[in-house]
Amino acid sequence: MRSFIGRDILSLKDWERAEYFRVFEVADDLAPIARNRRNSDILSGKTLLTAFYQPSTRTRLATEAAMHRLGGHVLGFSDAKMTRAGDFYQESIKDTVHMLEYYGDVIAMRHHLQGAPHEAARWASVPVINCGDGWGEHPTQVLTDMYTIWKEKGRLDGLNFLLVGDMRMRTMHSIGYAMSQFDIEATFISPPEMSMTDEFKKELTDLNLRFREVKTVSEAIADADVIYMEPVVQADYTKARDEVKENKGLTPAAYKVTRDLLRDKAKPDSIILHSLPRMDELPPDVDATRHARYWEEAFNGVVMRMTLLSLILGARE
Amino acid sequence: MRSFIGRDILSLKDWERAEYFRVFEVADDLAPIARNRRNSDILSGKTLLTAFYQPSTRTRLATEAAMHRLGGHVLGFSDAKMTRAGDFYQESIKDTVHMLEYYGDVIAMRHHLQGAPHEAARWASVPVINCGDGWGEHPTQVLTDMYTIWKEKGRLDGLNFLLVGDMRMRTMHSIGYAMSQFDIEATFISPPEMSMTDEFKKELTDLNLRFREVKTVSEAIADADVIYMEPVVQADYTKARDEVKENKGLTPAAYKVTRDLLRDKAKPDSIILHSLPRMDELPPDVDATRHARYWEEAFNGVVMRMTLLSLILGARE
Amino acid sequence: MRSFIGRDILSLKDWERAEYFRVFEVADDLAPIARNRRNSDILSGKTLLTAFYQPSTRTRLATEAAMHRLGGHVLGFSDAKMTRAGDFYQESIKDTVHMLEYYGDVIAMRHHLQGAPHEAARWASVPVINCGDGWGEHPTQVLTDMYTIWKEKGRLDGLNFLLVGDMRMRTMHSIGYAMSQFDIEATFISPPEMSMTDEFKKELTDLNLRFREVKTVSEAIADADVIYMEPVVQADYTKARDEVKENKGLTPAAYKVTRDLLRDKAKPDSIILHSLPRMDELPPDVDATRHARYWEEAFNGVVMRMTLLSLILGARE
Repeated sequence: MRSFIGRDILSLKDWERAEYFRVFEVADDLAPIARNRRNSDILSGKTLLTAFYQPSTRTRLATEAAMHRLGGHVLGFSDAKMTRAGDFYQESIKDTVHMLEYYGDVIAMRHHLQGAPHEAARWASVPVINCGDGWGEHPTQVLTDMYTIWKEKGRLDGLNFLLVGDMRMRTMHSIGYAMSQFDIEATFISPPEMSMTDEFKKELTDLNLRFREVKTVSEAIADADVIYMEPVVQADYTKARDEVKENKGLTPAAYKVTRDLLRDKAKPDSIILHSLPRMDELPPDVDATRHARYWEEAFNGVVMRMTLLSLILGARE
Repeated sequence: MRSFIGRDILSLKDWERAEYFRVFEVADDLAPIARNRRNSDILSGKTLLTAFYQPSTRTRLATEAAMHRLGGHVLGFSDAKMTRAGDFYQESIKDTVHMLEYYGDVIAMRHHLQGAPHEAARWASVPVINCGDGWGEHPTQVLTDMYTIWKEKGRLDGLNFLLVGDMRMRTMHSIGYAMSQFDIEATFISPPEMSMTDEFKKELTDLNLRFREVKTVSEAIADADVIYMEPVVQADYTKARDEVKENKGLTPAAYKVTRDLLRDKAKPDSIILHSLPRMDELPPDVDATRHARYWEEAFNGVVMRMTLLSLILGARE
Repeated sequence: MRSFIGRDILSLKDWERAEYFRVFEVADDLAPIARNRRNSDILSGKTLLTAFYQPSTRTRLATEAAMHRLGGHVLGFSDAKMTRAGDFYQESIKDTVHMLEYYGDVIAMRHHLQGAPHEAARWASVPVINCGDGWGEHPTQVLTDMYTIWKEKGRLDGLNFLLVGDMRMRTMHSIGYAMSQFDIEATFISPPEMSMTDEFKKELTDLNLRFREVKTVSEAIADADVIYMEPVVQADYTKARDEVKENKGLTPAAYKVTRDLLRDKAKPDSIILHSLPRMDELPPDVDATRHARYWEEAFNGVVMRMTLLSLILGARE
């Protein structure tokens, strides 16, 4: 297995099965720190630099919280307007990185442009964590999700995944790659205009993932062990949020997971994951069912970032 | 007395006399840390999550400074635009809290909606501190103020309070409840359109607070031991600041406390508190008089937040 | 030499030669902490308050990174909109400082108004560091630059400086004062509308700096040991960045330093400094030449702030 020390976390495309299990093992080890709400001093000598060119609450705060739980330091920015990249200088990633690399020991970057963290990693003398790059990938979210599923179901092999959402989005790309490392059957459901690209389908086929596409949640939910959801509203990550404000709409029934549907058709032990925030595709009355696991997922978001930071910074062999 | 460990600080409506004195006692104990400018390690294992949906300088920084003085960690956001709550998702408080609660050990929340921190506290597994909720309350500010008065005057019982400002504002609500726990006589002064609501007057009457309303500072200042001021400009906390920028106006003489008025009519040992920022209701030449105590109040703002964080997080029994 | 303990860093106008060397000596001492990427605990009991009324990436993050490297705490704001100074209260510096001084042990301030940090220092009970004040000065940047030159060239006396950029900008003011303390010959180059003011020329003459003004880089580069660059685009620090977005233009050849020019005319051991970000006055293909020292300059930006914070806060005698 490749060493995690100093490694960039950019994509799950090249992650192997054994690496997932190694990460889960360390996560199990570190989880009690978060659960018992006592910071440790594992990374007390280290500094995390957050470079968020797009606003984010969950990913940024979960990553920062992870660093604090490990006793580390955090600095950075959460709005491109606060930086030279956002103004008329339009500074190159190379120039920006040859500044940021001196301010911390690891860079966590979210960017509206696909591939920006990869470009940063090319120049940086410190490891770079991709916290979401445009339509690209979102590896730390999906590592969180796979860990949550593994914890809740006790295994990954042999599971049936039902994935509902916008298939062009970064989370879907990362989980596609992740599923391919396990004996998982995947069913994808999305509005036609948000369906998988031919290129992505070919990639998954080449990775030997068994998958199919269906039209409604209703026709596939009975087989699902894991229901993995994203909103199907049109979110254009290349635009500022203000510009898409008016797009709030109702989710068609075909892409919703309701309490009735769960009671009537779902496996009793099936679990629902949603990285949140949600629109109306997952009504709040589902929260009280046996299926909901998205709060556990949120908690594990901190644990997984603790794990990755510890491994990358060499605090865990 | 109810334990402070794990307690939410949402409102002063239910605070009892003994609880104020307990808080003052701990504040006296912790004040030297702030005065000597040396951080301690009392809360080194703990993390504060600041969730400020409205901009704030004083309250946010005083709370963060308090956590730093105690050796703790701080993360969060200071602008709703940086969060999903501010965009087209319009995430519910429940969903937001089931994320924030994993990022820290106590949540300090300011919100433009009255009752939002109470709703947060309903769902959160960690204590919530109300740092100002719309037109609701501002308990940490008023605990700071009561402590400052107690320190400067040596007592609270038997004092006469003159309160000038917009009586519909959150600070006035909290100090109304606070005064009712002591033998305090209150005189309220505000422009007619900013006067106390009938509902609030009934509340204070039910709490047995002795109070009256008069029209001008001039006619009541001679009796005052404590002059408690807020601007009387129209500040609508439900609007963005940009929208109220043009409202800057001159404060009518009836609501101003000037150097001349103090010299001519005030008790020599009366003290002035103002949580700042100020408009022209309190001219800068008052700063050099014997009455000014607002810088002490600002300093105590850090001490009081240190006190509350220590008590809530169990660092002080 | 004046003690550094508790000293404000507002201007280099009154800095003496020996003080530079004292600062360089401490910088050499602290540099390994940054280079080895291990935070220390030299300032673990101290808190830095960053008051950035103007956006900044490099200066703010370098200063914050320095504090983290020394184990200290950091809080503050990086956008005036987040403060009362930015809204309709238009709070005075005096009032603002009588709040900020309780939140940290040293205040690092950037302000769009020249002299604002000086006004802050007048009222604050803690030291104030000027991180750039309008058209005024930028002492911490220039101390970084002088240290970088001293490290890279082994000396300051006897060097020939070529300075290209907008001569009305704060960095140029500070380096003018700095050069005057050494046996340095300076050549200034700028577009006519950005040339030195008569007042500044008189100041430099009174300080006995030997300097001349020429029209093009090309005619003076052969003599230069140090090429010190700034963009010559029109940047109006009194305006928001959004307002100047359309001003991006091409730099005339007279003010550019290209690879060809360096190969044909520059001294082989001449070095280029640029505080970045850059426009097209310094093309990226220069990065790979023997002359480029701006990444070292960026690294030293952290080291110099570590040095100043340590000295000011009394961690180094």
